Amino acid sequence: MLKSIFKQAQILSSLTLYEREKGKVLRYMCGTLIASGVLIYDLNKKKAEMAAKKGTIDTSKFMAEPITNIKTLENNSRDMKTRMELMIMKIQADFCRALEAEEDVETKFQVDRWERKEGGGGITCIMQDGRIFEKAGVNISVVSGMLPAAAIQQMKARGKNFTQGEKMPFFAAGVSAVIHPANPMIPTIHFNYRYFEVQDKDTVHWWFGGGTDLTPYYLNEDDARHFHRTLKDACDKHDKSYYPKFKKWCDDYFHITHRGERRGVGGIFFDDLDTPSQEKCFNFVKSCAEAVVPSYLPLVKSHKDDGYGYFERKWQLLRRGRYVEFNLIYDRGTKFGLYTPGARYESILMSLPLSARWEYMHIPDPNSKEGKLMEVLKNPKDWLGTDDKA
Amino acid sequence: MLKSIFKQAQILSSLTLYEREKGKVLRYMCGTLIASGVLIYDLNKKKAEMAAKKGTIDTSKFMAEPITNIKTLENNSRDMKTRMELMIMKIQADFCRALEAEEDVETKFQVDRWERKEGGGGITCIMQDGRIFEKAGVNISVVSGMLPAAAIQQMKARGKNFTQGEKMPFFAAGVSAVIHPANPMIPTIHFNYRYFEVQDKDTVHWWFGGGTDLTPYYLNEDDARHFHRTLKDACDKHDKSYYPKFKKWCDDYFHITHRGERRGVGGIFFDDLDTPSQEKCFNFVKSCAEAVVPSYLPLVKSHKDDGYGYFERKWQLLRRGRYVEFNLIYDRGTKFGLYTPGARYESILMSLPLSARWEYMHIPDPNSKEGKLMEVLKNPKDWLGTDDKA
Repeated sequence: MLKSIFKQAQILSSLTLYEREKGKVLRYMCGTLIASGVLIYDLNKKKAEMAAKKGTIDTSKFMAEPITNIKTLENNSRDMKTRMELMIMKIQADFCRALEAEEDVETKFQVDRWERKEGGGGITCIMQDGRIFEKAGVNISVVSGMLPAAAIQQMKARGKNFTQGEKMPFFAAGVSAVIHPANPMIPTIHFNYRYFEVQDKDTVHWWFGGGTDLTPYYLNEDDARHFHRTLKDACDKHDKSYYPKFKKWCDDYFHITHRGERRGVGGIFFDDLDTPSQEKCFNFVKSCAEAVVPSYLPLVKSHKDDGYGYFERKWQLLRRGRYVEFNLIYDRGTKFGLYTPGARYESILMSLPLSARWEYMHIPDPNSKEGKLMEVLKNPKDWLGTDDKA
Repeated sequence: MLKSIFKQAQILSSLTLYEREKGKVLRYMCGTLIASGVLIYDLNKKKAEMAAKKGTIDTSKFMAEPITNIKTLENNSRDMKTRMELMIMKIQADFCRALEAEEDVETKFQVDRWERKEGGGGITCIMQDGRIFEKAGVNISVVSGMLPAAAIQQMKARGKNFTQGEKMPFFAAGVSAVIHPANPMIPTIHFNYRYFEVQDKDTVHWWFGGGTDLTPYYLNEDDARHFHRTLKDACDKHDKSYYPKFKKWCDDYFHITHRGERRGVGGIFFDDLDTPSQEKCFNFVKSCAEAVVPSYLPLVKSHKDDGYGYFERKWQLLRRGRYVEFNLIYDRGTKFGLYTPGARYESILMSLPLSARWEYMHIPDPNSKEGKLMEVLKNPKDWLGTDDKA
């Protein structure tokens, strides 16, 4: 019911917009263009707000309507599935709006809401070729169905005590983002926070995973410290052992093994978090997700007008080549996603930069600025002096 | 002995060159610069020829000294290992010279001869940022040692009847090349021909593998037919069943599964070839390798001065992004190479383009030139009308 009112409000508002802004092409793209049945929404805040206010859940600030039916969400408001979906919707919107605020006014996220025939769907927000952000992708997905055999095997290998080996219903909800700024003095950021449920006969296994990490092109130690400090504060509120443990996990995970270098200056990374309680895990993950904007936006603001030339741009592109190597060769999420039949590969591969470069045997002078970055990529640093407390 | 004369001749000739061309920086780079103990040679043909002529093997036209000691090669001239090494050295040199002939006179291949501490080594020839070739890599490697466990498992999975499960000595010799031209009207070519020996107690298992395939940015049907015709002719001299079988294998192998598209218009691909005899397999592989220049060079010559603009360049970069996806996600050789400890990753990754691009949801109009290419990438074509004879 609410869903249909919401849709009508959108269509109406689009028409009004069209009439108001004669001569401009209204970006209300038709779903038939796109392979996997995607619908693209242009939200008009006021009407949506009015429609949404009729229920108890306020969806008016989200990038699009939630994936799960509003009534289902309302009727299951204490269910972790609901809480996670609403949390990631809010994180997505807050992050997108914060990035848009740094951009030229006419540069906005393109919003693709897509459905998955096996169950669930997602909302992919992309900004491309902006003045500040060369490519920014912020994705949420809320999917359910039967776990593919490969996924069961991978989870078992990671230590999940499943009694069954096939046909296990699952639910997964997550937010993930990769932001590649235009200016080489602004680092790339990636984050991902997710919640899993797997039904194993009468038992529901659940766990959280995620992380936030930073990939600078030029090392600014103050930036790296600010970034790590913000993440550590978010962790410390919940468990003092989290930051040192998850910082190390991050350094170990984002490792371009064949080159013996890390993707960036790290951050935090964790998986299979299911203690001490669901409530406490959720609160921790929420804190981490909410720390993304304060960890990153100050870096964007302070460097978006820094000067640079062709040399720095070329180095940025070479490092982006390394980013592509990590994502396509090692990243578990990317590999797992692409090997899943019917995966929405455009949403998975939104993490790839607009441009990347590979030069044979490019080895920067160890005493150059580029060499200084390489040094910390080869030998991860303890940014906050916490190693001894781990 | 001969090896040391050869080296002396090289050093001498470099010095002479240096004295003759005062003021110019002599590109005689020091191996210490480079991670894995690479030596870089600048060959002076005359001295090398003089030195080489003293033995029975003429190495004067090779890009560098063979990997195996010349005396060992001379003493084992009928051994398939020797014959393969000399064949791939010649293929490398012929191909490099043919490409250089299309370039501006000052643009030459950089030649890196490297050694592998576990046994053997290789010669990597790279040309970068040329007027005709944006990035061209032609690599030979001749390596030996103990097969890594993962390789044994992979070979067994492919049907090799090994009695042992570990500590199996192996020998591998191969040539591989990827050429990314600057002009989007010239296709990218890739080829690879290789010979394997694995010692399993008292039995030596041997086999050949390889293939040549073409990746156009704009489809020129005459070019595709010429390319396939040349490969078919090379196959037909040996076995009429080869071309249709290996053409299909190529279409199946170079498949970007998540996108449901092929990397290019195919060619031939085969592996584990060990019948009808070693001699016949070698002759077939030699014919295929010798067909590379006549299959590809006419395409370079006819399109190197074609006009194009930013739009075509952008499309070329997007397709190069797909090339990267295939190579890093699916290509067996790349994956196998990068997962091998101590692999010379710069030689493996020479296949990556100088530049690549990823745009979210880039779907060309089906009626455009770009759309026409997509059509054959999604539905591989029988270029020579041979399907019914397969």
